[in-house]
Amino acid sequence: MKKLKNYAKAFLPTTISMATQPPESLKTDWLTLPTSDQVFHPSNLNPHLVKMEYAVRGLLVQTAEKLEAQLRRGELDDAPFDKIVYCNIGNPQALDDIALTFIRQVLALVTYPGLIDAVRGGQISEELFPSDTVARAEDILASVPGGVGAYSHSMGIPYVRQKVAQFIEERDGYPSDPEAIFITDGASPGISTVIQSLIRGPNDGILLPVPQYPLYSATVAACGGTQVDYYLDEANGWSLDVAELDRAVTEAKANGVGPRALAVINPGNPTGQVMSANNIADVIQFCADHHLIVLADEVYQENVYDPDNKPFVSFKKALMDSAPGVRDRVELFSFHSVSKGMLGECGLRGGYMEAHNIHHDGMAQLYKNVSVSLCSNTIGQLTVGLMVDPPQLGDPSYHLYTKQYRKQYKSLKRRALALTDALNSMEGVSCKPASGAMYAFPQITLPAAVAAAASDLYMSPDTYYCLELLKGTGVCVVPGSGFGQVDGTYHFRTTFLPPEHELAKVGETVAKWHAEFMDKHRGS
Amino acid sequence: MKKLKNYAKAFLPTTISMATQPPESLKTDWLTLPTSDQVFHPSNLNPHLVKMEYAVRGLLVQTAEKLEAQLRRGELDDAPFDKIVYCNIGNPQALDDIALTFIRQVLALVTYPGLIDAVRGGQISEELFPSDTVARAEDILASVPGGVGAYSHSMGIPYVRQKVAQFIEERDGYPSDPEAIFITDGASPGISTVIQSLIRGPNDGILLPVPQYPLYSATVAACGGTQVDYYLDEANGWSLDVAELDRAVTEAKANGVGPRALAVINPGNPTGQVMSANNIADVIQFCADHHLIVLADEVYQENVYDPDNKPFVSFKKALMDSAPGVRDRVELFSFHSVSKGMLGECGLRGGYMEAHNIHHDGMAQLYKNVSVSLCSNTIGQLTVGLMVDPPQLGDPSYHLYTKQYRKQYKSLKRRALALTDALNSMEGVSCKPASGAMYAFPQITLPAAVAAAASDLYMSPDTYYCLELLKGTGVCVVPGSGFGQVDGTYHFRTTFLPPEHELAKVGETVAKWHAEFMDKHRGS
Repeated sequence: MKKLKNYAKAFLPTTISMATQPPESLKTDWLTLPTSDQVFHPSNLNPHLVKMEYAVRGLLVQTAEKLEAQLRRGELDDAPFDKIVYCNIGNPQALDDIALTFIRQVLALVTYPGLIDAVRGGQISEELFPSDTVARAEDILASVPGGVGAYSHSMGIPYVRQKVAQFIEERDGYPSDPEAIFITDGASPGISTVIQSLIRGPNDGILLPVPQYPLYSATVAACGGTQVDYYLDEANGWSLDVAELDRAVTEAKANGVGPRALAVINPGNPTGQVMSANNIADVIQFCADHHLIVLADEVYQENVYDPDNKPFVSFKKALMDSAPGVRDRVELFSFHSVSKGMLGECGLRGGYMEAHNIHHDGMAQLYKNVSVSLCSNTIGQLTVGLMVDPPQLGDPSYHLYTKQYRKQYKSLKRRALALTDALNSMEGVSCKPASGAMYAFPQITLPAAVAAAASDLYMSPDTYYCLELLKGTGVCVVPGSGFGQVDGTYHFRTTFLPPEHELAKVGETVAKWHAEFMDKHRGS
Repeated sequence: MKKLKNYAKAFLPTTISMATQPPESLKTDWLTLPTSDQVFHPSNLNPHLVKMEYAVRGLLVQTAEKLEAQLRRGELDDAPFDKIVYCNIGNPQALDDIALTFIRQVLALVTYPGLIDAVRGGQISEELFPSDTVARAEDILASVPGGVGAYSHSMGIPYVRQKVAQFIEERDGYPSDPEAIFITDGASPGISTVIQSLIRGPNDGILLPVPQYPLYSATVAACGGTQVDYYLDEANGWSLDVAELDRAVTEAKANGVGPRALAVINPGNPTGQVMSANNIADVIQFCADHHLIVLADEVYQENVYDPDNKPFVSFKKALMDSAPGVRDRVELFSFHSVSKGMLGECGLRGGYMEAHNIHHDGMAQLYKNVSVSLCSNTIGQLTVGLMVDPPQLGDPSYHLYTKQYRKQYKSLKRRALALTDALNSMEGVSCKPASGAMYAFPQITLPAAVAAAASDLYMSPDTYYCLELLKGTGVCVVPGSGFGQVDGTYHFRTTFLPPEHELAKVGETVAKWHAEFMDKHRGS
């Protein structure tokens, strides 16, 4: 009984309550909270920030963390699970996916250059550090004044920006200018900096897909701008229809909002679709016609699981393929990251942004803005440099790198298929195949009783579903409402990152719980 | 002749021009620039960001970078210097100061855990990795799920936050709560996040010292708030006078601005003063009386060169030493960093923020805000953990760590004295002793002809002086106008970080150039 009480208590404090009064933390508008005479209190803070929401690390995750702490303390022995499975965020290494050895070898050498001398002096075997890792580390240290311990140029280490430009040139077959590359702490800071620059007030709009990765909605809200929704077409595999963009722009303008930029996530997050070259060309033409900057979030460009039929095409390439008048006019920012792909180096925080067709005075502004935080972390920067310039055929590290890379790729692809199949086998669940990225975003059709139960708790039905799922299985996913969805439809986002030997079990557990949940709420 | 032309050309493009027209980049108000039909152009961007200035990486540095590139290309053989000496920013490792070996050893082990097995298996000698570095790395990997490659908790790795809290407790003799610690990418992001939260509009003010580190003025400007200046007293060694705070607050209120927080930099940047416990207590009492949050920037807390007479006292300790009613009421954020002190790990980007007396709903807001950028980089986070928990007496690494630490400390202290002496020996230059930090901020009294020459170039006299110094010696410092100064006075900030064997030569070169500069402008 004591244990049961403890288990129930896990859901009571601050983050979620089963009481009949709406728990404070569930109110979406913090401004209705009681005021306080403390200065740093929501009632006295920047309302844009206070209103901002960020679901990927929101209520579900905070509840999961609380449960995990209780599990560790042995307070939840009666719970129907013995660990939390975090499917809320694309964080592969937290779920046992391994780092690529080459990357880590080079990083260790540049972090502690004494190792280089030891390898060169024969005190450490080449098995631990193949000769190309040492050569690469020496190359880096010769090119980076002060090594990893010094602030770099605010736009990023020139050596890395040069490598990124070469990578883009080889990928797209078009020139890329190192002076137009910013190296960033993951992709997020580049995206925020550009959006922050674009928003002058509430009449400035940014077109965001629905559903979207909530960094976008959070940043637009924090800057006091207006989010202009365009809906992806779930029935057509979450495709992007230019007619829908047109509707969104027309409606925004009728409401006095001027759209300034269009954010596109390709491959999609949370939806996993991969856009065709023709579709991208149409979107670019639309942006030319409506004078919109393109923000192309391409962090999943290596996570493409049907490359023959649905290859990744960059917005930069599609733009360069366009007619004059479009090619030389549409302003484009593209983003990439070391956190996804096969590296999955989330913790190292490395990414880049390429600016194209941006006025030099606009570039000067960006440079100034990023200067205020001095530079992004050098280890993350160097990881970007390694990602875009991996070992080549003939290099001692090539074989292992390629083997690890392919193994990870195949495993992700298998997991994507297995998860989609498992979800589609569940009653009331419909999941489009994920051609890319790391997520499934299934739609769930829930019995009417679920909406009623959720409403009693001041929650949306999908939030209620996800919390019950967490309580019943330990699996943490994020409700669709955190990403946006058509009114009256319900979804959740789950990564397909649990290790393969666990994924089947996770699928079974969820399926069993889901069947019971549906039965319980059917009104039987 | 061709070379001379090249040398002159270094100063022409975009950043600075010797033409009679005001170069666009020297205009302080970008909004007066011609408009553009490109979206990402200053005339169409967020005016708060466009107006924001950031001198530490501004005109002087951009010019220095251009010169350095030309030196590399062999285009400046006629220049009176053969390299650029960057004294514009506290970036010790860029100027040959070395990293502490213990820190780098542990970081290399956690980055490439294969090394741990190799040391344990006897394939690598303990000279390269003493046993305590291996034990520490194992402790870290056991405490950090997914290792360095996984996103951490958004507030930071709990293991690191725990260590920071212990460090603060031992430093101050008062409890510290790990749940009130945020680990950040250097100190800057914590400072910006708090200021961004506090500013709701132009009537919200933040009290900033004059002179100040321009991160503060830049962030207040970017958020659309009002900078409320309080002047440090140069005649009294840049001390902080509460009467001056009172004047600043009264004047701000008369202008309709409500001050919300007081930023204090102790030890001072750019001024190097160290505040006494009594002075800090008075400032805290003032903040209690005026309902102000304290932002205590204590990143130079280990850079204190007269610890017997002017020891570092943290705001947290001084607050806890205060009377009830103050101790339990004044809201405090304190900031620290791995970039300064004896580590100087600027490139790794690690720091922390401690929140004290902050309402739990305010804490929830901060947690949400930092969540949007997922987490700070894990290598920087772990560096924070190592900084606050160095090897102890008896540990194998203790001797080397202590030796390197003391060597760096003594060297910085000697450099501080040598630089101040050298500056004070120059005509018209007066420099207060630096009791702390990494900078000297001398006042320069310039002949009237300098003001006239500067005015012809649409520059302030101190900017003109610094640019001429750069052109004449290759030494890059930052004009006082970038930090703020009493109207009609002129200063510059220089780090004392060049290596000791070069510092004397740098001093001589600057002194010789300065004498010629003064002669030239005396109207002789």
